Amino acid sequence: MKTDKLFFGAAYYDEYMPYDRIDEDMSMMKAAGMNTIRIAESTWSTWEPQDGVFDFTHLHRMLDAAKRHGINVIVGTPTYAIPTWLNRKYPDILAITHNGPGIYGGRQNMDITHEGFLFHAERIIRKLMEEVCHHPNVIGYQIDNETTANDTSGPNVQKAFVEYLKEKFPDIKDFNHEFGLDYWSNRVDNWEDFPDVRGTINGSLSAEFKKYQRKLVTDYFSWQAAIINEYREERQFITHNFDYFWTGVSNGMKPAVNQYDAAKYLSVVGTDIYHPTAENLTGYEISFGGSLMRSLLNSNYLVLETQAQGNMGWLPYPGQLRLQAYSHISSGANSIMYWHWHSIHNAIESYWKGVLSHNLKENATYREAKIIGEEFNRIGSSIKNLTKKCQVAIMVDNESLIGLDEFPINKDFKYNNILRWIYEALYLNNIECDIIPQNAEFDRISAYKMVIVPAMYSATDESLINLKEFTANGGHLVMTFKSAFADKYLKIHHDDQPHLMTDCFGMTYDQFTCNEVELSDTAFNSDGAKVSDFMELLIPQGARVLAKYNHPAYTDYAAVTSNSYGNGVATYIGCHMDSQGISKLLLHLCDEAGIDIPQEKFPLIIKKGINENGNEIIFYLNYSDKPITTSALHNGKELISDNTITKGCDLLIEPWNILIMEV
Amino acid sequence: MKTDKLFFGAAYYDEYMPYDRIDEDMSMMKAAGMNTIRIAESTWSTWEPQDGVFDFTHLHRMLDAAKRHGINVIVGTPTYAIPTWLNRKYPDILAITHNGPGIYGGRQNMDITHEGFLFHAERIIRKLMEEVCHHPNVIGYQIDNETTANDTSGPNVQKAFVEYLKEKFPDIKDFNHEFGLDYWSNRVDNWEDFPDVRGTINGSLSAEFKKYQRKLVTDYFSWQAAIINEYREERQFITHNFDYFWTGVSNGMKPAVNQYDAAKYLSVVGTDIYHPTAENLTGYEISFGGSLMRSLLNSNYLVLETQAQGNMGWLPYPGQLRLQAYSHISSGANSIMYWHWHSIHNAIESYWKGVLSHNLKENATYREAKIIGEEFNRIGSSIKNLTKKCQVAIMVDNESLIGLDEFPINKDFKYNNILRWIYEALYLNNIECDIIPQNAEFDRISAYKMVIVPAMYSATDESLINLKEFTANGGHLVMTFKSAFADKYLKIHHDDQPHLMTDCFGMTYDQFTCNEVELSDTAFNSDGAKVSDFMELLIPQGARVLAKYNHPAYTDYAAVTSNSYGNGVATYIGCHMDSQGISKLLLHLCDEAGIDIPQEKFPLIIKKGINENGNEIIFYLNYSDKPITTSALHNGKELISDNTITKGCDLLIEPWNILIMEV
Amino acid sequence: MKTDKLFFGAAYYDEYMPYDRIDEDMSMMKAAGMNTIRIAESTWSTWEPQDGVFDFTHLHRMLDAAKRHGINVIVGTPTYAIPTWLNRKYPDILAITHNGPGIYGGRQNMDITHEGFLFHAERIIRKLMEEVCHHPNVIGYQIDNETTANDTSGPNVQKAFVEYLKEKFPDIKDFNHEFGLDYWSNRVDNWEDFPDVRGTINGSLSAEFKKYQRKLVTDYFSWQAAIINEYREERQFITHNFDYFWTGVSNGMKPAVNQYDAAKYLSVVGTDIYHPTAENLTGYEISFGGSLMRSLLNSNYLVLETQAQGNMGWLPYPGQLRLQAYSHISSGANSIMYWHWHSIHNAIESYWKGVLSHNLKENATYREAKIIGEEFNRIGSSIKNLTKKCQVAIMVDNESLIGLDEFPINKDFKYNNILRWIYEALYLNNIECDIIPQNAEFDRISAYKMVIVPAMYSATDESLINLKEFTANGGHLVMTFKSAFADKYLKIHHDDQPHLMTDCFGMTYDQFTCNEVELSDTAFNSDGAKVSDFMELLIPQGARVLAKYNHPAYTDYAAVTSNSYGNGVATYIGCHMDSQGISKLLLHLCDEAGIDIPQEKFPLIIKKGINENGNEIIFYLNYSDKPITTSALHNGKELISDNTITKGCDLLIEPWNILIMEV
Repeated sequence: MKTDKLFFGAAYYDEYMPYDRIDEDMSMMKAAGMNTIRIAESTWSTWEPQDGVFDFTHLHRMLDAAKRHGINVIVGTPTYAIPTWLNRKYPDILAITHNGPGIYGGRQNMDITHEGFLFHAERIIRKLMEEVCHHPNVIGYQIDNETTANDTSGPNVQKAFVEYLKEKFPDIKDFNHEFGLDYWSNRVDNWEDFPDVRGTINGSLSAEFKKYQRKLVTDYFSWQAAIINEYREERQFITHNFDYFWTGVSNGMKPAVNQYDAAKYLSVVGTDIYHPTAENLTGYEISFGGSLMRSLLNSNYLVLETQAQGNMGWLPYPGQLRLQAYSHISSGANSIMYWHWHSIHNAIESYWKGVLSHNLKENATYREAKIIGEEFNRIGSSIKNLTKKCQVAIMVDNESLIGLDEFPINKDFKYNNILRWIYEALYLNNIECDIIPQNAEFDRISAYKMVIVPAMYSATDESLINLKEFTANGGHLVMTFKSAFADKYLKIHHDDQPHLMTDCFGMTYDQFTCNEVELSDTAFNSDGAKVSDFMELLIPQGARVLAKYNHPAYTDYAAVTSNSYGNGVATYIGCHMDSQGISKLLLHLCDEAGIDIPQEKFPLIIKKGINENGNEIIFYLNYSDKPITTSALHNGKELISDNTITKGCDLLIEPWNILIMEV
Repeated sequence: MKTDKLFFGAAYYDEYMPYDRIDEDMSMMKAAGMNTIRIAESTWSTWEPQDGVFDFTHLHRMLDAAKRHGINVIVGTPTYAIPTWLNRKYPDILAITHNGPGIYGGRQNMDITHEGFLFHAERIIRKLMEEVCHHPNVIGYQIDNETTANDTSGPNVQKAFVEYLKEKFPDIKDFNHEFGLDYWSNRVDNWEDFPDVRGTINGSLSAEFKKYQRKLVTDYFSWQAAIINEYREERQFITHNFDYFWTGVSNGMKPAVNQYDAAKYLSVVGTDIYHPTAENLTGYEISFGGSLMRSLLNSNYLVLETQAQGNMGWLPYPGQLRLQAYSHISSGANSIMYWHWHSIHNAIESYWKGVLSHNLKENATYREAKIIGEEFNRIGSSIKNLTKKCQVAIMVDNESLIGLDEFPINKDFKYNNILRWIYEALYLNNIECDIIPQNAEFDRISAYKMVIVPAMYSATDESLINLKEFTANGGHLVMTFKSAFADKYLKIHHDDQPHLMTDCFGMTYDQFTCNEVELSDTAFNSDGAKVSDFMELLIPQGARVLAKYNHPAYTDYAAVTSNSYGNGVATYIGCHMDSQGISKLLLHLCDEAGIDIPQEKFPLIIKKGINENGNEIIFYLNYSDKPITTSALHNGKELISDNTITKGCDLLIEPWNILIMEV
Repeated sequence: MKTDKLFFGAAYYDEYMPYDRIDEDMSMMKAAGMNTIRIAESTWSTWEPQDGVFDFTHLHRMLDAAKRHGINVIVGTPTYAIPTWLNRKYPDILAITHNGPGIYGGRQNMDITHEGFLFHAERIIRKLMEEVCHHPNVIGYQIDNETTANDTSGPNVQKAFVEYLKEKFPDIKDFNHEFGLDYWSNRVDNWEDFPDVRGTINGSLSAEFKKYQRKLVTDYFSWQAAIINEYREERQFITHNFDYFWTGVSNGMKPAVNQYDAAKYLSVVGTDIYHPTAENLTGYEISFGGSLMRSLLNSNYLVLETQAQGNMGWLPYPGQLRLQAYSHISSGANSIMYWHWHSIHNAIESYWKGVLSHNLKENATYREAKIIGEEFNRIGSSIKNLTKKCQVAIMVDNESLIGLDEFPINKDFKYNNILRWIYEALYLNNIECDIIPQNAEFDRISAYKMVIVPAMYSATDESLINLKEFTANGGHLVMTFKSAFADKYLKIHHDDQPHLMTDCFGMTYDQFTCNEVELSDTAFNSDGAKVSDFMELLIPQGARVLAKYNHPAYTDYAAVTSNSYGNGVATYIGCHMDSQGISKLLLHLCDEAGIDIPQEKFPLIIKKGINENGNEIIFYLNYSDKPITTSALHNGKELISDNTITKGCDLLIEPWNILIMEV
C-alpha cells in the first residue's frame, strides 16, 4: 500500500495516563512533527469493564483530541488480552497449552477457538467499529496484535485436529505409514485411540499439530478481517502488527504464524521491530524485518511499533533515534511509530520506556524525535513509498523452521541461526535482498538473479522443481545443508540427498557429522575458515569443489560445490562455516552471478530504492561512533542538507548519522 | 534485653540421638564452658505422635538433665513442621503456593492461616508450656522458627486478600487506577471477578499480595506470643530465630517477613547466621546480621544458631571458630549457640555438622569450643551487653526489596546486591553502622551523622520528608539510584525524579540505561572505576558533580552529585560502580561528615562498644592467615591475656585471631 | 554363555521400512558377513494394532527372510512401549512418577505393576512366543529393553511399599528410629498416616523407595523370564539389553536397576554401549561396559546394540568402526550388533543413524562393516568365548550410588564420577579389572589380588568383614573416601569412621571438608596433585602416610594411608585427587601388590584373554591418529595378517587400528 506521507507518531493510551493531559500530549506531538497515533488495542477491559457494559470515554477523548489537533488515528481491536469478567464467565477460556492449563494475568493466553471468546470478541469489535468507523481521523485498523494461537492445545482443539487429519488421511493406515507411527508402538489404528498430542515423541506429528495451530491463526485473521471489512471505509486500511522470533530482540522468523498466509487478509503489512542499540546498534534487525515485511505483500509496510527509549539498556546514543528512523525508511517502511508515547507508571512494561519518560516532560529522546519530524515534513515526499529492487532473494519456510525444532542439529543451532547467518553475511556486505516463501510462484522467483535457500529441511517437490527450473533458466541457486531432506510431513526422503536435486547440484551425500575442522582449497579465498555445528560429507558427481574439509578423515569429500545446470549455476553449501567464510563465499557467488555489490561494507550501510518521481534514493547509514568518508558514485542532491553532490566527491558521514542522496 | 552473662551452648535434640547419652553430652558441654541449650523446636511429632496423644519423655529427660548439670534451657515451640497425622487429618493443610499445591515432607509448608493448623498448633504450644513454664532452668521461649507465610496463596488466603483490598479501596475505581489495571485489560470492576493473583503480571498487585503475606506473618507472631505470654514467668524471655535472604549463606534482608514489625512481639531478638568459612571467612555476614538484629529492637540480641562444623566446605580452620564467636559478640550479640551439638545420623541435614561429629566424641571443633568457653567464663562480664554507638545508619525497606524483585534491574542485580555493595564498602573500611527501617521515627534517624539509603524504590512521602528534615538539620544523606522512584504501591511517580527530593539533591534525571563505562572527573580519587548494571543520567541543578561518565554519549550528565541542603549535605549516587569506587566514595563522604574512621582496613576489622562498666571495648579481628601488626590507640588492657597495653605500642594480631582492648 | 561363533549383525525392523526391501537388506547383510538380526522389541502396536487383534505379517516376513538367507534371529518382547489403545483402555496405566502423572507418547512410561498392563503384556508375549518359539533361526529371546520401574510412584505402588516396610518393621517405632523420622516432625506412628513418599526430605526413606522400585524391576524380570521359559527351546537363550547411567553416552552404573539381581534370570547378559567417537574415541566406555557386563554372570556377554553411524557427531573416522568392534570382543563380548541396520525416516530417533543411511545404499560405514564381517568369519573362532583373568576388581553398589544422590558431596560429583575416576586410571594404564557387587561371595572376592572399593557409602557389616578377611588373607584392599559411612538404610554410623574398618586401615577420621589444596609428601611421586570436591582429614593410628595435604590448616592429617593388616595391605584414599595423582597412586599400589602391568599406556590399549584353545590372545588397540610402535613380548601369530611374530620384534599399530596376537 502506498501512503500519502510518512506516518510519524506513537501508540497512545489515554486510559493509562495518571491524569488528564491529552491536549498537552497532542500539542507536544504536533510540535515534534508527529501526525499519527495508534490506539485501543489491548485494553478490552477499559472499553467493556463488565459483561455488556461499554464505556468508550477514553476512546472518544482520543478521537476528539486527534481531530482537534489534526492527527491520524490507527485503531486496534483489543482482543489480545481478555477482561477478568470474561475469564470468570468462562473458566475454560484460557488456552490449555503444552505447559498445561493457563492462569489469568498476561495477554495472549486464551483459546482463540473458544466459542465464548469468539462471541465476546466479535461483540466488542463491532461495538468499537461502530464508535470509530466514520471518524474522519481514523485512517486504518489493526487486527489484534502479534497474534498466534497461544499454543492452544486443549481437548477441543485436539479433537478438531483429529478431524483435520481424518480429512487428509481417509485411510488411517496411510496416516500411520506417512508419520512412521510404528515407531515405539505409537500406531493409531482407530481414530478414537488418538492420544494427547502434547506427549508425542513423533516429530512429524508434533510439527503437523503446530502447522494446524498456524492454520487456526490464519483462520482467525480471516474471521476478524471480515468483521472489520463490514465497517471500514474504503479510505481506511486494515493491517496487523507482525513480530518475530524473540531472543530479547526481534530475531528471525516467527514459528507460530505463517505471515505470508495471514497477510493476505490485510491491505498493508504492519510490524514491530525491537533491536539492540547504544554500542550494539548495527541496523541488522531493522533491515531483516524490512526485508521480510516488504516481501509479505510485495509492497511497502508500516512500522507500527519500534523503540523510543525502549527496554533496559536500549537508550539510544545521541543521533541513534534518527539513524534508526531512516534505517526503517530505507528498507521500504512508510511509518515510524514508537511504542509508545509515554512511559507507563504501573504493570509489567513500566521499564519499556516511551518517547517521554515517567515525568512526561520534554527529554533528550523527544528532542531528537523533533528533529526527525522536522526532516520528515521537509523531505518525506522524496523518500516515501520507495520501490526496492533486489537482485537476491532468500527463500524461507515455516515448516522447515519447525522441522529443525523437532529434529535439532543441536540445541543452540536452529533454523533462525542459519537464516541469520546468511542474511547477516549479505547485510554486512551491502547486498540487499528480499525474503520469499517456499511456495512463491515461479514468476516471483524468476525475478531474481540469485535465490539463496537456507536449510529448507521440509521441501515440496513443487518448490524444488521450481528452483531447478529457475536455475536451468540461468538463475543462480545457492542452497545450504539440511535442505530438501524431508517431505512436508518431515518424513526423511529415502532417495539420494538432496532429494530431487542431485543432478542440479552435481553432488550427493549420505553421511554428515559435526567436528571442529577448517576449510581448505577454497575457491573463495577463505582457507582456514572454521566449520562448526554441522557438516555434510559431499560426494561430487560432476560439480566443481569450491571447498574441502582440512582433516584426514574427510579427504574424500567436498564442503562446498558448484555446478552448471542448464544456463544457470547451482551452489551447495554443505556446512556451517564462520562469518568470514560465508561472507567471502557469498561475495564470490554474487560476483559470479553479476550482482551489483557496493564497495562499502558495514559499518557503512548502503540502501537503495526508487522514489515516486522515479529517482534513485541512496541512503548512507553510519553504524559506528567514528566518521566515515566515501566517494559519491553519482551526481545528485543530498536531501537533508539540500547540498548538490558531484560524482567522485568525498561524502563524510558523521558517527551514527546519515546522508540521503537523490540521484 | 540485657543478659546476666554470655550464653554459650548449642541446640540439643535428645529425640534425634542414636542411643542414651544425655549425661555424657551435658558433661561434655559443661567441660567446654557451655551454659545453655535450645530444645523442642521442630519435633512436634515427637511430642504428639498421634492426634491428642502427648509424649514429653524426651523433653523431661532434657529438662531434668539440664537441671542436674546447671544448664539454661531455651524452649522453642515446635510449630514449623507438622506431623504426618495432621497432614492426613486435613489434606488441605499444606499451603497452596505460587508453585501449586504442596506435598508433605519438608518443614514450613503449611497454610499458617488454616484453622485446623491453628487449633492444633495452639494445643501443642499450650501442652508444651504447661510442661516447661515453671521449670527453673527454662530461661526463655522461641516462637516457631525462621517464620514466613510459606507463600500460602490458596483460595482462602486470596479471598481474605480481596477483603483486605476492599477495605483499603472502598471505591474499586481507585483500586484500578492506583494499580494501573487498565494495562493489558486487567481491570477488576467487580470484586467477584478478582482472578487468581498468582497469575498476575501487575507488579504492584503481586507486591501487594506479598505485603499481605508479610502481614500474615506479623499476625502469626502476635498470636503465638500472646499464647506464650499467658504462661511465661517474668524472668523468662520470648524470642524468635530470625534469618536472612539465603544464597547458600545468610546474605541480605529476607523478603518474606517484616522483621521490624515481627520483633515488636519479642523481648529479645534472636537470629541464626551462617557464613562461608575457611579461606572465605571475612566476618561480613556476621557483621551484617549483627547490624540488622541489634537494630530491630535497638538492643543486644542472641545468636541462637550459628555453625560449628557446618555445611560441606565450612569446616573452620584452627582459630576460626573462636574468631567467629568474638565477631558475633563484637557486634552486640549476647550469645553463641551452635546449630547444633551433635551431627545427625539421618534425614536431610546430616551433613550440616554440629560441634560433635557423627561419632559423638571430642574432636578439633569441640576442643576449640572449649577454649571459647573458658575465655567467656573469664572475660564474659566485660564484653556482654555491649552498647554500640554508630554514627552511620543504612535505611532498608521490604517494599523496595520486593519492588526490585517485581521490576528487576536485571536478574542478577537486585535489592540485596545493592544493600551488600553499600554495607560491604563500610565494613571493609571499619565504618560501623546500624540498619534502620524506612519508617524509623525522626528522632531515631536524627541520632546519626550519616544516613545511607540504598535503592529505596518504594518510598513514602513521610519518610522522604523525614530525610530532608534530617539533612536540613545538618545530617549527611547519601541515597543511591532507584530511590524514591515509586510510591507504596510501586506506582512510578509522574513528577521529577527523585520524587520530592530534587531540591534536596539539587539534581534531577529522566533517563537511565546500562552500559560498560568508567567514571571520570571523580572528586573522590576513583577515576576509572567501572560502572555496571545500572546508570542514571543525572542533570545537576545546583549540585556539585562528584563524578561523571567517561563516554561521549553521556557528557551532559553526572554520575554522582552532592548538594548543600540547609545545614546538611545530600549526596546522590546515580550508578553502580565497582567496589573500589564505592569504597573511596563512602570514605570521602564519611570524612566530609566528620565520621570517625579507623586507619585499619580489612582484613583487620575493628569493632567497638561500651561495656556495662562504661568502658570502651575495642575488638581487633584478624580475618587472614597472616599476622598483622597495628598500633595501640589507647592505654588499656588486653582482656584475654590480661596484658596492659600502652598507647602507641605495637599490637600483634595472629592469623585468624583476635585482641580485645578494654580502654 | 559360550556361543558357537561371534554374532555379527544389527537390529532389524521391517515394520519401519518405507518400502519392501527385505531380501535386498538380508543380501547386503550376508555380503557384509553378518549372521544375526534382532527383531520385534518395541513395536507392540504393530503386532497388536487393536485390543486382541494380532497381525504378525512383518514378523513372519522377517523370520521367513532370515531362514531364506541363513540368518540368526533374536526376538525381543515388545513390552517397553505400549499401544495407544491400551493407554485409552486404562487411563491410569501410565506411571505416576516423582514428576507427576505421565502423558502418552514415549516408551518406558507405564506402571509396570499395573494389572491391566501385566495382563496385556503377558498376552502379547505369549502370542509372540507361539509364533516364533519353534522357528529354527530363532536363537534367543530378549526380555523387554533397558528395563526400569519407570519411576512408578502412584498410590498403588506406595501402598505396596508401605506393606513392604511393615514386613521389615513389625514395630513401627523401630522404623521411626532407623529412619530418623523424628527429624522435622516426620514420625509415622500409624502406618495409615504414611504420607506421599515423593515429598519426603528423608534421604533414607527416599533411598528405600528407590530400592523398592529396583525390587519391582527384579520381580518383573522374574515374571517375564518365567513366561518365556515356558516356550523357549533348550538351544535358545534368554537375555536382556542392559544399559548404563546416561550422560549422552553410556557412562557408569545405572541407578534404577540392580543388574546383578536381574541377570540371575538370564542365560546370557546382553547390553547396549554408546560412546563418543571421532576425535573422542578412547575405548573407555566399551571397556567399562565390558567389565561390568562380563561380571554380572561372570561369563561372556552379548553386545546387542552399539552404534554404527550413531547419534549426531558420532560418525566414526575410517577404521574406527572396526577398532570399536575389536574393543568389544577384547573385553569378552561374543557379538557386535548394530543399532540398527537402517536409518529411520520418521519419529524421534531418525538421527540415530544405522549402518545404512536414509538412502538405504552402500556407504562408507557399510563398507567398513564388510571388512569386520570378513575378518570375523576368518579369525572369529580364535577370539570368541574369551576367558578374562583379571587380578583387580572394583566393588560397586547401587545403594551407595543412591546414597550419594540423596546426600551429594556436590551436585556435580556423585558416585559415578568417583567410579569413573578409578576405572579410568586403571584403563589408561592397561590394568584390566572386573566389577563385582558389594554382596559378592567371599570366594569370588578372594580370587583377586586387589579389590578397589570406591565410595561404598552404604556398607553392610557382612561385606566389610569380608573385605577385612580378604585383606588379612594377603589381599590388597583399596578403599576411597565416603566408604563404610552409613548402614543399609543410609543411617550414618555413630562409631569411629570408617565403620568397622579403623583397625584394618590403622586410621580414623571425624572431620572432612572441601578446599583447593595440593598433595605433598606423597609416597607415589605425585606431589602437587590437586585435590578437589572432597577431603577427609585422616588421623593415622598405625598406618603409613602415603600423602598429606599441603596447607597449614591440615598439617595434623593424612590424605592417603596404607596399613599392613594380617598378610595383606589396606590403603585408604581420603580425597579426590586429579587424574595424574590417582593414576600414579594406583600404579604404585598395583606394583606393591605384584599386579602385572604392561609397559604400554593409553592411547595404546592392551587387552588379554584366553581363547577356547587355551592360548592367550593379546589385543593391541591404537586409539589415536598416529601410528604406535611397541615391542612384542611373546612369540606368536598376528591373527588378521596371519604373520608370525617373534618376541622382541617391533609391532607397528596403525592409527585407529589393531593387532591381535595369539601366543
